[in-house]
Amino acid sequence: MERPYSWRETGRRRRGCAIPKFMDVHSGFIGATEDQLRAAHERDLAIEAAEGAHVERAWLDPDSGKVFCLSSGPSKEAVLRVHEKAGHPTTESYELPVEVE
Amino acid sequence: MERPYSWRETGRRRRGCAIPKFMDVHSGFIGATEDQLRAAHERDLAIEAAEGAHVERAWLDPDSGKVFCLSSGPSKEAVLRVHEKAGHPTTESYELPVEVE
Repeated sequence: MERPYSWRETGRRRRGCAIPKFMDVHSGFIGATEDQLRAAHERDLAIEAAEGAHVERAWLDPDSGKVFCLSSGPSKEAVLRVHEKAGHPTTESYELPVEVE
Repeated sequence: MERPYSWRETGRRRRGCAIPKFMDVHSGFIGATEDQLRAAHERDLAIEAAEGAHVERAWLDPDSGKVFCLSSGPSKEAVLRVHEKAGHPTTESYELPVEVE
């Protein structure tokens, strides 16, 4: 069983970020529309609570077919399960312990 | 000379997004620290105005060395010039005409 919000034994600190964040990258959305992206995102939102995850925002480049999802949750695997169960699986996700603006 | 905020002849509309947005992806930041990311980002901020661009946020995955920058500007080329002049060039950038949350 996964520990919730496991902090891995790296000694890194996530300042101001209690729940791990991730960038999930999808491919294959070439020519997708805003309505299609919204529908896909709403399928995430409908089921994400079961994984303790949240897909905050999603951006689409319809020319390359890439979708970037900024998400948060207890683990990368939990976030990827949300996308899989919602019908748009990917294996590409990056944990983001550092953020600046 | 590039036209400012050129809207390419695709007929797509960018709802609620006057200035094109981009996700710029950097590689090779394996083991980078928050201070290093902040320093790199501040070099972007110091010079971006000359290109009419803005790098809004940057996220780092030090395990894979990936950095994702959410940026805006008149063109992909303008944003990539900012990164190049700031000392961290990349060729990987995706225009994001569609966003949901």
